[in-house]
Amino acid sequence: MRIVGELINASRKKIRDDIKEKNAEVIAKVAQDQVDHGADFIDVNAGIFVGKEADYVKWLIRTVQGAVDVPCCIDTPDPKVLEEAVKEHKGTPMLNSISLETDRYNNMIPILRGTDMKVIALCMSDEGMPYTKDDRMKIADKLVNNLVKNDVKLENIFVDPLVQPIGSGDHFGREFLNTIEAIHNKYEGIHTICGLSNISYGIPKRKFANQTFMTMAITKGLDSAIMNPLDEGMMAKIIATETLLGKDPFCEKYMEAYREGKFETKKS
Amino acid sequence: MRIVGELINASRKKIRDDIKEKNAEVIAKVAQDQVDHGADFIDVNAGIFVGKEADYVKWLIRTVQGAVDVPCCIDTPDPKVLEEAVKEHKGTPMLNSISLETDRYNNMIPILRGTDMKVIALCMSDEGMPYTKDDRMKIADKLVNNLVKNDVKLENIFVDPLVQPIGSGDHFGREFLNTIEAIHNKYEGIHTICGLSNISYGIPKRKFANQTFMTMAITKGLDSAIMNPLDEGMMAKIIATETLLGKDPFCEKYMEAYREGKFETKKS
Repeated sequence: MRIVGELINASRKKIRDDIKEKNAEVIAKVAQDQVDHGADFIDVNAGIFVGKEADYVKWLIRTVQGAVDVPCCIDTPDPKVLEEAVKEHKGTPMLNSISLETDRYNNMIPILRGTDMKVIALCMSDEGMPYTKDDRMKIADKLVNNLVKNDVKLENIFVDPLVQPIGSGDHFGREFLNTIEAIHNKYEGIHTICGLSNISYGIPKRKFANQTFMTMAITKGLDSAIMNPLDEGMMAKIIATETLLGKDPFCEKYMEAYREGKFETKKS
Repeated sequence: MRIVGELINASRKKIRDDIKEKNAEVIAKVAQDQVDHGADFIDVNAGIFVGKEADYVKWLIRTVQGAVDVPCCIDTPDPKVLEEAVKEHKGTPMLNSISLETDRYNNMIPILRGTDMKVIALCMSDEGMPYTKDDRMKIADKLVNNLVKNDVKLENIFVDPLVQPIGSGDHFGREFLNTIEAIHNKYEGIHTICGLSNISYGIPKRKFANQTFMTMAITKGLDSAIMNPLDEGMMAKIIATETLLGKDPFCEKYMEAYREGKFETKKS
């Protein structure tokens, strides 16, 4: 499982203040904590600071890369901010995100073309959110084919089918899961990713529901997630699910997690 | 999800004593408790009493049917015991179980032929336990086709692909899960069933692993289980998984389970 650590996001009050005050030590620690708990990428988002976003994102990238060895996932809808941020980043970052929305698509392609950067590809078009698996696959097919035509490798594409709340439609979980499966069946080597906490919006026991849904999504092929790696219950669930799926030779990671007490606090 | 309550089994010391002493009140209560917690069938097993099995099983059936309205799942490998037990049972029971092992198969077919009884069909042959999905499907195909030729309806067949411990082979979870999926894809209306606790044999945190594996199996199509319905953590997991799969209109069962506090004690 590839984990994109989601904590350095200015929509979180505490982080917003830390960014504003340029508390490099705090940001470095949040990056380090996430890596220590299994993050493979560190998402950096300063989208809330209108007019100052580029400066803040570049500072975040410098601060994170000064602290940890994993790449950033640069999280902005603004192509100008993105261009500056990509230049600031050492090595190849992940970009969050492209979609089939005309403006976003047209702005992102020149930045991505022929590079080795990884990119999150949202199943979203000018027609808005997709509802069914077929809606999602129509968007995914266009996006993936266009990216490949623009010399983006399949293994650098992370398709996000977008999770919608089960409370607003019984079928939303199933349509999402079936999309994950269909994408992996169709495109060998591609990745799927999501931030799945939306699934439980509006229902109680959200952590419990989210963890259960994570197990379901991994069972259908999900191989990456945007999440809080410090959520021990969720990380334990991911380890167990991958072990039971046969992705953990000799149950080594499972046994290591057990010895480290990672399965102990799992009241979900 | 169809639940076969597994608690009335003479291999359990307490139940063995209760059967020997014909404690009808205790057996009736164990049956009632299981039904109250969601059992659709009550497994009855007195296999440990050599020579007296038929008498004890018939007594168990009378006692269970005197207490609850759900059918029994008659659990014996002995065809003579089974014949007597079927006669004792009011209405149509479930039989546990037929397999492709020559003796068991030949003995079971005349009992099942043309009836409306439900039957658990184990993916086991004279060659022993299957290891891969393909091994399992070869056995399942023969068993299902032969049962159908003998006028057993597809919807009365509950295929058990047999779970093997993940600790003795990384692939055992995956092969089982892929068999569940393949059976449902191939035979519309058929059921799949298992007792899945074997998956965690030899590894720690068995309850946690079993619950995770249940979610995975349901995601692949598993629609029945032989289990302890008084295991609240497991039952909560099943409810949440089915809700997230879209099998719970308006999240009604999920909300009901929440209001009843079923998600509260779920340290797994």
